[in-house]
Amino acid sequence: MLRPLTRSTLLAVVASVPALGQGFDPATGNAPIEVVIPAAIPAIFETVAPGDAPLILRTTTLLNNVWFDAIAPYHPTAIGVCSNLGRRPASEHTDANRNVAILYASHRMLDSLFPTYQQDWRDLMTSVGLDPDDTSTDLSTPIGIGNAAGAAVVAVREHDGMNQLGDEGNPLLTGRSDVGRPYWDHTGYAPVNTPYEIVDAGRWQPAILDNGYGIFRTQQFITPQYGEVLPFSLRKPLPILSPPPLASDPANAALYQQQADAVLAASANLTDEQKMIAELFDDKIASLGMSALFQSVVQGMSVEEFVHYDFLTNLAAFDTGIVIWREKRHYDAVRPFTAIRHLYGDDLVTAWGGPGQGTTLVPASQWRSYLPVADHPEYPSASAAFCAAHAESSRLFLGTDDLNWSLDVDAGSSRIEPGITPASNLTISFATWTEFETVCGMSRFWGGVHFEAAIAPGRAIGTAIGARAHAYLQRRILGTP
Amino acid sequence: MLRPLTRSTLLAVVASVPALGQGFDPATGNAPIEVVIPAAIPAIFETVAPGDAPLILRTTTLLNNVWFDAIAPYHPTAIGVCSNLGRRPASEHTDANRNVAILYASHRMLDSLFPTYQQDWRDLMTSVGLDPDDTSTDLSTPIGIGNAAGAAVVAVREHDGMNQLGDEGNPLLTGRSDVGRPYWDHTGYAPVNTPYEIVDAGRWQPAILDNGYGIFRTQQFITPQYGEVLPFSLRKPLPILSPPPLASDPANAALYQQQADAVLAASANLTDEQKMIAELFDDKIASLGMSALFQSVVQGMSVEEFVHYDFLTNLAAFDTGIVIWREKRHYDAVRPFTAIRHLYGDDLVTAWGGPGQGTTLVPASQWRSYLPVADHPEYPSASAAFCAAHAESSRLFLGTDDLNWSLDVDAGSSRIEPGITPASNLTISFATWTEFETVCGMSRFWGGVHFEAAIAPGRAIGTAIGARAHAYLQRRILGTP
Repeated sequence: MLRPLTRSTLLAVVASVPALGQGFDPATGNAPIEVVIPAAIPAIFETVAPGDAPLILRTTTLLNNVWFDAIAPYHPTAIGVCSNLGRRPASEHTDANRNVAILYASHRMLDSLFPTYQQDWRDLMTSVGLDPDDTSTDLSTPIGIGNAAGAAVVAVREHDGMNQLGDEGNPLLTGRSDVGRPYWDHTGYAPVNTPYEIVDAGRWQPAILDNGYGIFRTQQFITPQYGEVLPFSLRKPLPILSPPPLASDPANAALYQQQADAVLAASANLTDEQKMIAELFDDKIASLGMSALFQSVVQGMSVEEFVHYDFLTNLAAFDTGIVIWREKRHYDAVRPFTAIRHLYGDDLVTAWGGPGQGTTLVPASQWRSYLPVADHPEYPSASAAFCAAHAESSRLFLGTDDLNWSLDVDAGSSRIEPGITPASNLTISFATWTEFETVCGMSRFWGGVHFEAAIAPGRAIGTAIGARAHAYLQRRILGTP
Repeated sequence: MLRPLTRSTLLAVVASVPALGQGFDPATGNAPIEVVIPAAIPAIFETVAPGDAPLILRTTTLLNNVWFDAIAPYHPTAIGVCSNLGRRPASEHTDANRNVAILYASHRMLDSLFPTYQQDWRDLMTSVGLDPDDTSTDLSTPIGIGNAAGAAVVAVREHDGMNQLGDEGNPLLTGRSDVGRPYWDHTGYAPVNTPYEIVDAGRWQPAILDNGYGIFRTQQFITPQYGEVLPFSLRKPLPILSPPPLASDPANAALYQQQADAVLAASANLTDEQKMIAELFDDKIASLGMSALFQSVVQGMSVEEFVHYDFLTNLAAFDTGIVIWREKRHYDAVRPFTAIRHLYGDDLVTAWGGPGQGTTLVPASQWRSYLPVADHPEYPSASAAFCAAHAESSRLFLGTDDLNWSLDVDAGSSRIEPGITPASNLTISFATWTEFETVCGMSRFWGGVHFEAAIAPGRAIGTAIGARAHAYLQRRILGTP
């Protein structure tokens, strides 16, 4: 019987990359799980994980995309998303070929996504016995297929609207990746509120962040241009699907106060389990990534099955994010901390008082959410949408709602309240994907970063796009238009 | 003959703290140089060095303050700044006693300044054979004197106007260090320009910072309340001394354009030596701290002489900062990047094009300074003022303008253009303190973060306060009012 992996076990596996890389055998191994993911995660945490989902998701999705394209020629019918590299004879449909193609394709994409880490990616190739300088595009070899697949995806994605090279959106900068700022918002978003003044209490206000030692910074809406990015499974232009967030309009005074009070009540009544669940879902790699990895281990997936499943869940969330980002920009809705400050100013409110302070009386102007507030407007909830897309696409791919994922959480292992929370060891369990997405949505409310009304609309979008993404990937696998 | 230490040698010494701590002998050693400074520097870099001078200077100055107060009882006439702990008999005026007092006093201050590092400070005490739990205040022992001196300075400085505990400036937060935000600006500064829009082209605009991977953040004026902080050598209220920065007023159109063009010309003509000098003076520990440490080694200073000299240069800069911060807040003056963008929009200008790009044609809206722009308004130059205060106080203490400091700079050792600049090894030399402060001032113009007109007023303030600080410390050493 398979013993379910815990989060800490999986993270430990992921942390042990050098040992894994050195013992990697392309004939029997799984290059994404054993080599590429463990190598990419530290780079992700050092670069894009200080922000939230869009950049993390784009990284993992584009890596999946090159894997999918790199192994398509070794499948009976699949055709790549950005490439059509022909089909190799059945005798070559081996994991040895797939893994080598995956590694060369990953090298191309990692160089593009993480240009300051190029020496690390060279070392990675060397560590698994491959020549980092082999840039062959001979499509009769796995090296050539990997290089060609990687280059094809890179060519599309370096100009997909995300402005990865800083040369999109401004005609003066076309071809000027030398002076442009990577990922710069070329859509001209500007908040109506400043960090210092609430001009419209229904709209987003950048939060002032600090490191506890006097270094203060103000948020910028993270990549507003994400709503304009090239999707996989969707056709543009995209409609706005969610109803307006009525309770976030201060003209609806009773509703406005009611939904803010509900956030304060949740803050005052936070349990250790809610805190740890909120932290889990705030970490997209630990929640979305690890639940998929867990299922792939439980199901004993082949390299090909893993790539298809992981790509599916990633592109489902990635496309969901495009729709959610358009809606976030459209509604530009207020976060709880602004509404609470607007309503109550310096009045004392009962709430969580900060790390280790428990429930106490806090001037409303000083209230903070348990989770750090993400760098974008509130409505609808992106996390709820990502979890729903992940759950729906998983259900369709795996043919069941069963998940049976269980995570051991050690006493004191909180990132927000280290050494304090949880007071004793606890276990977080998800019997089904439905439970996973439901709890995920609520965790954003518990964490104080969302009103409850933002959860259902986000979830609805994620579920719809999860199904679209599944249909889309089935077509790519079957090689039908 | 003493071989002048280089910056890299000094930094290497500083980096080797565990070895040093373990071999430390209070009877013959120098606790600040061998134990406390090497231990504090990593914490400074991890917490306050992401910002610029105010928080770094306050940290080093307050450590110096506890050292001064801790050894005053072992001096014939000196009286502490925050404490008057009596005088020990001449037979006890030993470095063994001074070093032990310094270490216990440092422990109190490090706990206050770096509360999340308290285990590190316990380990530090243990590493030099001292009991971190000995909180005796028996003034007949160096342990008691150290603890009492440290506690006295902590008591004054935790409420000196810098809002270190987050409980100053708002009556609701008095005594509420549990919910207040440390170092929060309690003076209500708000910029007139947003990062997105120039409302007044003469005023400060927060810059949008990024990490090259899509995480964008906006500056906050760092600790505007620094101008209200309790000084050492000055009486409040402080006058505004500098003349208005006329060329920073866009109504004076010709002057406004002229001074912006001068910054662009400097940017286009940057030499490797200018780049490396700009980087040196941008790092206050490497420039101010290390030049003082260098002189203390060259002069063979005793523990007591080192403490007096290092405290002097630090308090001179600290008090200078208070005056400069009032002026920065008062004039709230535009930085070059905003003026250049305002004048030329998307027009192409000839300038440094970014790391490794050399001189090229850049849309003015994309122009960036070689140095990252500091988190506060432009006028007058704080760095020019700090260097002048440091130089003037050094001249008066050392009785000479001679410095003879020489730094080897390795090819490719630039932080801004690693592996590229400088193209070959070079040496940066300062024969005199006058040369040091002159070059320091100009380096802010070369680095693109200041107009040239901001340098002289900053320097004038620093020189005046450097002399005041020297007179002040002489009075403390002589024990006269």
